[in-house]
Amino acid sequence: MLIVKKFGGSSVADPERINNVADRCIEDYKKGHKVVVVLSAMGKTTDALLSKAQTINPNAPKREVDMLLATGEQTSVALMAMAVAAKGVPAISLNAFQVAMHTTSVYGDARFKRIDTERIYNELDSGRMVIITGFQGINRRDDLTTLGRGGSDTTAVALAAALRADACEIYTDVEGVYTADPRIVSKARKIKEITYDEMLELATLGAKVLHNRSVGLAKKYRVQLVVRSSLNREEGTIVKEVTDVEGMLVNGVAVDKNAARIAVLGVKNEPGIAFRIFDELAKHNINVDVILQSIGRDDTKDISFTVDQTQAKDAVACLRENQERLTIKTIKEEKNVAKLSVVGAGMQSNAGVAAKMFEALYDVGVNIRMIATSEIRITVLIDLEDVDVAMRAVHDKFFHD
Amino acid sequence: MLIVKKFGGSSVADPERINNVADRCIEDYKKGHKVVVVLSAMGKTTDALLSKAQTINPNAPKREVDMLLATGEQTSVALMAMAVAAKGVPAISLNAFQVAMHTTSVYGDARFKRIDTERIYNELDSGRMVIITGFQGINRRDDLTTLGRGGSDTTAVALAAALRADACEIYTDVEGVYTADPRIVSKARKIKEITYDEMLELATLGAKVLHNRSVGLAKKYRVQLVVRSSLNREEGTIVKEVTDVEGMLVNGVAVDKNAARIAVLGVKNEPGIAFRIFDELAKHNINVDVILQSIGRDDTKDISFTVDQTQAKDAVACLRENQERLTIKTIKEEKNVAKLSVVGAGMQSNAGVAAKMFEALYDVGVNIRMIATSEIRITVLIDLEDVDVAMRAVHDKFFHD
Repeated sequence: MLIVKKFGGSSVADPERINNVADRCIEDYKKGHKVVVVLSAMGKTTDALLSKAQTINPNAPKREVDMLLATGEQTSVALMAMAVAAKGVPAISLNAFQVAMHTTSVYGDARFKRIDTERIYNELDSGRMVIITGFQGINRRDDLTTLGRGGSDTTAVALAAALRADACEIYTDVEGVYTADPRIVSKARKIKEITYDEMLELATLGAKVLHNRSVGLAKKYRVQLVVRSSLNREEGTIVKEVTDVEGMLVNGVAVDKNAARIAVLGVKNEPGIAFRIFDELAKHNINVDVILQSIGRDDTKDISFTVDQTQAKDAVACLRENQERLTIKTIKEEKNVAKLSVVGAGMQSNAGVAAKMFEALYDVGVNIRMIATSEIRITVLIDLEDVDVAMRAVHDKFFHD
Repeated sequence: MLIVKKFGGSSVADPERINNVADRCIEDYKKGHKVVVVLSAMGKTTDALLSKAQTINPNAPKREVDMLLATGEQTSVALMAMAVAAKGVPAISLNAFQVAMHTTSVYGDARFKRIDTERIYNELDSGRMVIITGFQGINRRDDLTTLGRGGSDTTAVALAAALRADACEIYTDVEGVYTADPRIVSKARKIKEITYDEMLELATLGAKVLHNRSVGLAKKYRVQLVVRSSLNREEGTIVKEVTDVEGMLVNGVAVDKNAARIAVLGVKNEPGIAFRIFDELAKHNINVDVILQSIGRDDTKDISFTVDQTQAKDAVACLRENQERLTIKTIKEEKNVAKLSVVGAGMQSNAGVAAKMFEALYDVGVNIRMIATSEIRITVLIDLEDVDVAMRAVHDKFFHD
């Protein structure tokens, strides 16, 4: 079997943990498997490097930032290869150049285009464990790129796809994917199996266990993922196309506290106005999420939408600049809101999920401000202060046994 | 003009010094020169990485050690490119992969084979300052190699040769090459010009200002070097083929305190014995320096030689193992010895240099234990405790005005 195993920064934060990871990888190696290990930078290395760059140049060229950050994973993989070798197993570390992991050119947010597999297969065939830098690639100029935060998950999935691996295991500091955040919902339980689409909704909505781009890639190339803990032997969560656990109405409850709601009021009720508003925002690279449109007074429209909190300021500035042209009377911004979502492949064939969710919120007196749905997700916008109560109520409703 | 400027680890140890180096490089850039900067790892980074490796695996594979160490220079060049960019000058950092600096495969002690210049010229032509990792290369497997301690000097010279640079400046924390170590000989003075051969003898003998391999490479490709301080504007020392200062009998006095003397006594006086002894040592990669052979008692020979102190133990062990076969009666090792040398291209055409040196030592009562000479060098082995007195006496004799 060919296994890709990915370990995050906290799993390799110090020599002791590096040795722990080495032991786990050697277990699989000794069972006769071919083992490819993907690592992030040790502990808080990436943050430390970024702050060093900040001291020297607050507007450092992004190409140079990626050149700097790439040293983090290279350090991890070299040390891991040493740790594995110390335990008598032949190992070799490879960076983005050595593998030839080709990406697009966008520094800090690159995407994989093509991964060469020859060197990896050669090393595996000569009996070595292969330890590869996550998070980084090279573009067509041979410059180093990085994939953005959480990019090592994506590296692991991309490698698993390129190598046609039999398994892709993502090790984190939690035991898997939960029905809700266990720190808030004490009754939250670990999900045994979840579909790509469900995981994608949960990842996008801030479950933070898996990087959402990695889930999309896994879906595209049908790479079955296992999310499990690097600290214990629990089974973890399997992410795959179709789960064996059919009929689960809802598989998880997720919260996103980084939302902001922007309302534009009194817009002229004529065709094309909504298009012009969202086109203007798109031109400024502002990602709009939930959108709600209603008829206002005097034959005008009110349009509300949510954006990531970090983009709220830019969104408002962009609208103000074009306020007249876009026929906007008033622009309002609300920061203290959160998105609460239930996700489940089962809801496609089951009516009443929305009603059940709204009932749960009604029972605890939580006001719903906006509603948006996809085939497998229902999201409501609520006040930030209501989040914990709402999450527990909704979770109890769907998972009460 | 195309200028290669090399700065060592202490010159880029912190953001302030990085900015200082950036300023000096920008001065040349603003004069219209094309500027290529070669950097070592910041401050004590290399030592810190080695000690990390040591914790994880005291016998770490050398390939992985080089993979680890290479991150040091990559960090320096990325930060320097940021510093230069912050001052409004376009800059780009390049590592061993990006330049394509091909070396032999010997990890930790690789030699340059070929340096591609295309990318560097392209970047220079588009108006950028180019900042390149010293000390590292890639071998034919695309694995990272390092050149051994002081290797960044060699990188600078190799780049200057490949690029046909007009100048190659080596910046250090001293002002140039001195007639003797200024910490010991207060009257030591800075040498204005020195030949490659003289510098090579001084570098090999422990002057420590320039890495000896870099001097050899400079001689081979006729790269004129300037050694100067990164902390002030003093002129430094020029290293070139023929100096304008002819007739200097002696150009410098150097000391090597890392010598050990090994004596093998009572060896059979038959042809081939000396060969067999040194062949055996060579097979164990032990570099033998000064050799002295004399007739012992009973038709036997005594052979003495010096080795680097770090190799003394291995040398003795190797001889003991073969003691019978090599017909050795006794093996003696002396550690408290030092080599004192005078170096000067002028001594080729001037008799009496040796006599002058011996007279100086006689005057201060220093006993000479062995003597060795080359065309431009006279070396004596003396007791370690005599070194400072001997150095001052010899220096005064040749440079007394």
